[in-house]
Amino acid sequence: MSSTFGRVFTLTTYGESHGPGIGGVVDGCPAGLPLDEALIQRELDRRRPGARPETGNMGSARRESDTVHLLSGVFGGITTGTPIAFSIANEDKRSADYGPLADLWRPGHADMTYDAKYGVRDYRGGGRSSGRETAARVAGGAIAQALLALHGIRIRAFATEVGGLAAEWTESELDDAETRPYSAASASVIPSWDELAAVTRARGDTLGGVVTVEALGVPAGLGEPVFHKLDAVLAQALMSVGAVKGVEVGEGFGAARLLGSQNNDRMRPASADNGFKPQWESNHAGGILGGISTGAPIVLRAAVKPIPSVALPQRMVTRRGESLDMSIGGRHDICAIPRVVPVLKAMTALVLADMLLWQCRMDAVNLHAWEGRRPSCEGH
Amino acid sequence: MSSTFGRVFTLTTYGESHGPGIGGVVDGCPAGLPLDEALIQRELDRRRPGARPETGNMGSARRESDTVHLLSGVFGGITTGTPIAFSIANEDKRSADYGPLADLWRPGHADMTYDAKYGVRDYRGGGRSSGRETAARVAGGAIAQALLALHGIRIRAFATEVGGLAAEWTESELDDAETRPYSAASASVIPSWDELAAVTRARGDTLGGVVTVEALGVPAGLGEPVFHKLDAVLAQALMSVGAVKGVEVGEGFGAARLLGSQNNDRMRPASADNGFKPQWESNHAGGILGGISTGAPIVLRAAVKPIPSVALPQRMVTRRGESLDMSIGGRHDICAIPRVVPVLKAMTALVLADMLLWQCRMDAVNLHAWEGRRPSCEGH
Amino acid sequence: MSSTFGRVFTLTTYGESHGPGIGGVVDGCPAGLPLDEALIQRELDRRRPGARPETGNMGSARRESDTVHLLSGVFGGITTGTPIAFSIANEDKRSADYGPLADLWRPGHADMTYDAKYGVRDYRGGGRSSGRETAARVAGGAIAQALLALHGIRIRAFATEVGGLAAEWTESELDDAETRPYSAASASVIPSWDELAAVTRARGDTLGGVVTVEALGVPAGLGEPVFHKLDAVLAQALMSVGAVKGVEVGEGFGAARLLGSQNNDRMRPASADNGFKPQWESNHAGGILGGISTGAPIVLRAAVKPIPSVALPQRMVTRRGESLDMSIGGRHDICAIPRVVPVLKAMTALVLADMLLWQCRMDAVNLHAWEGRRPSCEGH
Amino acid sequence: MSSTFGRVFTLTTYGESHGPGIGGVVDGCPAGLPLDEALIQRELDRRRPGARPETGNMGSARRESDTVHLLSGVFGGITTGTPIAFSIANEDKRSADYGPLADLWRPGHADMTYDAKYGVRDYRGGGRSSGRETAARVAGGAIAQALLALHGIRIRAFATEVGGLAAEWTESELDDAETRPYSAASASVIPSWDELAAVTRARGDTLGGVVTVEALGVPAGLGEPVFHKLDAVLAQALMSVGAVKGVEVGEGFGAARLLGSQNNDRMRPASADNGFKPQWESNHAGGILGGISTGAPIVLRAAVKPIPSVALPQRMVTRRGESLDMSIGGRHDICAIPRVVPVLKAMTALVLADMLLWQCRMDAVNLHAWEGRRPSCEGH
Repeated sequence: MSSTFGRVFTLTTYGESHGPGIGGVVDGCPAGLPLDEALIQRELDRRRPGARPETGNMGSARRESDTVHLLSGVFGGITTGTPIAFSIANEDKRSADYGPLADLWRPGHADMTYDAKYGVRDYRGGGRSSGRETAARVAGGAIAQALLALHGIRIRAFATEVGGLAAEWTESELDDAETRPYSAASASVIPSWDELAAVTRARGDTLGGVVTVEALGVPAGLGEPVFHKLDAVLAQALMSVGAVKGVEVGEGFGAARLLGSQNNDRMRPASADNGFKPQWESNHAGGILGGISTGAPIVLRAAVKPIPSVALPQRMVTRRGESLDMSIGGRHDICAIPRVVPVLKAMTALVLADMLLWQCRMDAVNLHAWEGRRPSCEGH
Repeated sequence: MSSTFGRVFTLTTYGESHGPGIGGVVDGCPAGLPLDEALIQRELDRRRPGARPETGNMGSARRESDTVHLLSGVFGGITTGTPIAFSIANEDKRSADYGPLADLWRPGHADMTYDAKYGVRDYRGGGRSSGRETAARVAGGAIAQALLALHGIRIRAFATEVGGLAAEWTESELDDAETRPYSAASASVIPSWDELAAVTRARGDTLGGVVTVEALGVPAGLGEPVFHKLDAVLAQALMSVGAVKGVEVGEGFGAARLLGSQNNDRMRPASADNGFKPQWESNHAGGILGGISTGAPIVLRAAVKPIPSVALPQRMVTRRGESLDMSIGGRHDICAIPRVVPVLKAMTALVLADMLLWQCRMDAVNLHAWEGRRPSCEGH
Repeated sequence: MSSTFGRVFTLTTYGESHGPGIGGVVDGCPAGLPLDEALIQRELDRRRPGARPETGNMGSARRESDTVHLLSGVFGGITTGTPIAFSIANEDKRSADYGPLADLWRPGHADMTYDAKYGVRDYRGGGRSSGRETAARVAGGAIAQALLALHGIRIRAFATEVGGLAAEWTESELDDAETRPYSAASASVIPSWDELAAVTRARGDTLGGVVTVEALGVPAGLGEPVFHKLDAVLAQALMSVGAVKGVEVGEGFGAARLLGSQNNDRMRPASADNGFKPQWESNHAGGILGGISTGAPIVLRAAVKPIPSVALPQRMVTRRGESLDMSIGGRHDICAIPRVVPVLKAMTALVLADMLLWQCRMDAVNLHAWEGRRPSCEGH
Repeated sequence: MSSTFGRVFTLTTYGESHGPGIGGVVDGCPAGLPLDEALIQRELDRRRPGARPETGNMGSARRESDTVHLLSGVFGGITTGTPIAFSIANEDKRSADYGPLADLWRPGHADMTYDAKYGVRDYRGGGRSSGRETAARVAGGAIAQALLALHGIRIRAFATEVGGLAAEWTESELDDAETRPYSAASASVIPSWDELAAVTRARGDTLGGVVTVEALGVPAGLGEPVFHKLDAVLAQALMSVGAVKGVEVGEGFGAARLLGSQNNDRMRPASADNGFKPQWESNHAGGILGGISTGAPIVLRAAVKPIPSVALPQRMVTRRGESLDMSIGGRHDICAIPRVVPVLKAMTALVLADMLLWQCRMDAVNLHAWEGRRPSCEGH
């Protein structure tokens, strides 16, 4: 079940870049959730290809409407508890662009490894390994986000670094990030990213970056020790996105350089000021302790590698082991950051929806009379 | 199945820090693997507590023999294909040390989150959230490593950074790393880590660090796109270890700052020099492309946070929301690095054994006549 | 993952009776299997509704072409190892027929239980609980049968009893059963079943029956003790088909009345006559011992209940607890037997494909030098 | 994960008949359930070998105390939500009895199939395929029954047929069945079963039988269509017990011979008499419609084959294909019925606990305002 994610709220996806279409099945969504195609389409529109304001200077010329169709699981505008299937047709397929690549192993792409694994490969546009596959994640994640919203959980994401140029931002800027070009954490960094993108495009090269994802309103108690800790499954979720090469929670690698006394988060005791709920004074942990949510915001960072399809000529080999120098055609983005933001949000939402249902089940059968003793905490 | 890891080669663990014992069940191991307790004990000895040469200045005074007993699945010295159960008794339990902690939420520990999730908690020594749980991972990982060894796969791990002090090393030093104090990547860094540990212990504080894990000899073709990519599952595996807050593959966060033309790995074409197998010229990808192994070494880095049990007095709250200042008693390490190294190796081995079996199954029923066309590659 | 079946070779299905369509995703099929829509269509045509020769006197007037479309996972006529998605549009929907049933709990249907479970329900034609859902099983099973055929495994099924009238047959008649009306085990029973169907239709009532499924050419060694024994998973598979109320393996309930000395199957010793492979002399076990295939044919029987939609007026209640007497409209079969036969074949094939891949994986990494000692057996 | 059962409330078992011991791990049990060893021991005592009143004339001379030890997951007398491990030592091992069987394929046993599957085999007492494995199921099932009891669900089982001699009983006799020899459905049948057992033992032969399992108090709404229907998973559960060759739900094979108008269950409309809850008037369906519980009692029947270890000499072959005539030594029961009853109860409980938690999760997040409209029903 390589293409299924989750254990209670699950998403199964299918589809290649240049086949008839892509799509997926969400199984395990509770009955009664209001759902329609427009809600899913909004998220898909954030990911679809093309030079749009949000993609800044980094988008390609490829055009796809990425129109989603719901096929099952919804009746009278609400979910029925049965599998929710959706499909997205592939429209702007110029498969002829890819003919010359049939035997080629493009550097930084999965061509060589798919050949090694399967022996055969749909080489058109990357086939299954194309970033196009992530549209189905975004659709599934939109359903997860609708479920989370009803429980007061909201996910936001923003780019904090492109090509080594880091943004500086204030907390108040973050909620608007997704309306900015590149989903930039701050407006002030945009001109320099614009310029970097222009220069890089002119050089025929590509850029990487860093995205921060935050989940707000997550109650304490989500996550399943020991192997399915909340941070462990989030790490799988984000790292399963093709371009991601690193994942951090809270202080991340920075925690390795702190002293224990610095890295430990303290709580403010219960008082009239905080409604008699202990409150976190800091959030070095990124909202997760022992693999379980603390009630503070969940903070994740993902490192996104530069797009491997550079216009510059590169030396490459064919599956027969021959060498040749060539430049990759096709229509490619300069940087994955603008379009990967909704994908990382979607993956985070899928994990949280799954963990929420997993936990609710236990709450529902909670047998021990610890009511009144169970702690409740406010986020930072 | 929160305490089960893997899908074909699976490990289920159990046990609390101060209960009768811990242990686990490995299911899905093929029949015919030579296995005995000594082989598992060797790995456990690397993880067990106590001030030993390998733990340098960082170990605690707690003593456990961590003796493993095999209970099933082995007959006449080889595995039979049935579940392999093992148990490790808890010996040096001073549960009385923990009585005062029953209502306390220790900073940086999972006390608050276990209370939030379960309502009840075995507070003695951290219970299920104790690092002691990782001994069962090490035992399971030892079985996985035995299976991998027969397929020419070897895993090594070494500490590259402690408390912000980075080691510098040469490739030739790495195979011996596990025989050094701290599993240090180089001998030259040991004195400065010794000193840092001594100073930190004197101040009542603790340290974090960074560990690199490498898997050598992994054939191209392992990993299951799209959600169970090799890097995604490795990220889950490493992040599921309590102290880990960040995971990188290959260049990791560094990849976000490279240009596409720099980050792409090139292959040397097939020639008489390389036995007519294309060979990787670099390994920025860390041995994984599109979620599938490339045949080059798999390179992972894990950020390990400082141990939260500092001797310094800390402000903390109880589950009733009261505040108090106290210092954590018990016997604690200064830094998790020396003892987490075998745990990270074990988790990496569990993933690779699982993926190897997953792939073998497909190879065994390979239906298409692509023999002779299937690529084979040499690692870097 | 209620709508996912299997662990290595998996089928996920979706769709309601009167929504846009139904379909599914097969994941885990090895690369290299020749596959096209025609191969799947052949099996679907055996299940589709309508009065056809194969449905004898038992079919309804509903017409569906049940045309399948492949959406992914096949390239150049062979599978690529990625998910194989397929869709089947719903055509002959007369949803207006069902309006009056919105609040009604039809006897013998899942109306009441879906309401109890989900609170909401797509009441049109049974929604997800409609027998229409089984078309996706048949499509998935066709892919499984293609995989099995390449390994010399063939599945056949035949009706042995309808409305209490049992067929008598000879072994030589069985391979042709699926070409006969009702997939009858023998030609001689057809006239009496024709007559029984006509009489029952005239009375406004419906019939049940018994189907035998046999898998031929299954090698010894498939099945995963202890909980995923071959017979256990086959029982789940057949019982998951809506109308099935009982499952037997080999002698089934008859075994409960035999003495041990009668029920034990004996083997003929190796000799020149049987190519030095021990051979089964009888097959009371139905090809499975200890949950693992023996090499003899696998023999299963499924009890199929009468179709609950009888034309006779029945007393029923609404979801508000009111009582009323009415007769079910719509267009319904008299007996599920003719159309359930391909469904039971499909479910059997899905189990065997899954178990075959599960086992191949182990064979591929078999480590112990027992070659030459491993037994091979011929079926009965 | 062949030795893991369930998806939310899971049981993983291990152990061979003549190794150090057997045991298991229950994962997913909610925190707060009162649990101790005595509760588990009570169920184990019903299954343990030996000539006791309950085993009537059918028991063997083998003696095992089957003493269970809890190793984790319980603190202060209640479950903590973490894995609950337990172990049962093997005591009365006379492995020397089995030496001569090392190369022998005993008729009706899994010797041949384990050799075919794994190539190696712990031949002592059947190893993993021994009925001894079921003790771990009984222990796990005892925990499940404790959970179910708190939700008002109770499971009872009784033997209705031995060696073809059927019991006749009245409803009022069933609650006491487990206190009778053979767990007989009625007291009146015991003398004839006693005699049959005596005669059969004298002839060196063995007997099979039929067991009915009923679950009372199961709320409507449990079961997960379409592949994990309640009846489908129950069928897997019962058929996974070694000796079971057939499973029926409700009318079972009898349903195949009824007319639709006979087999359909009707409901009594809501009225003051039934507290305004519609009530089932009959229960041909055995408490399950569309794979979901109806609120009526769940009724299952399992066919148990005769014990294959007959004292009569039998012709058998070795793994080398040689033939010999011999009689099976060791100490064996005449009939599995008395000891299989608690095993079948345990398996039923494991399924219901799993399905209960699966459903509770959905109830807990139920989003649609259908309260007041959701039906509630009383069982038959």
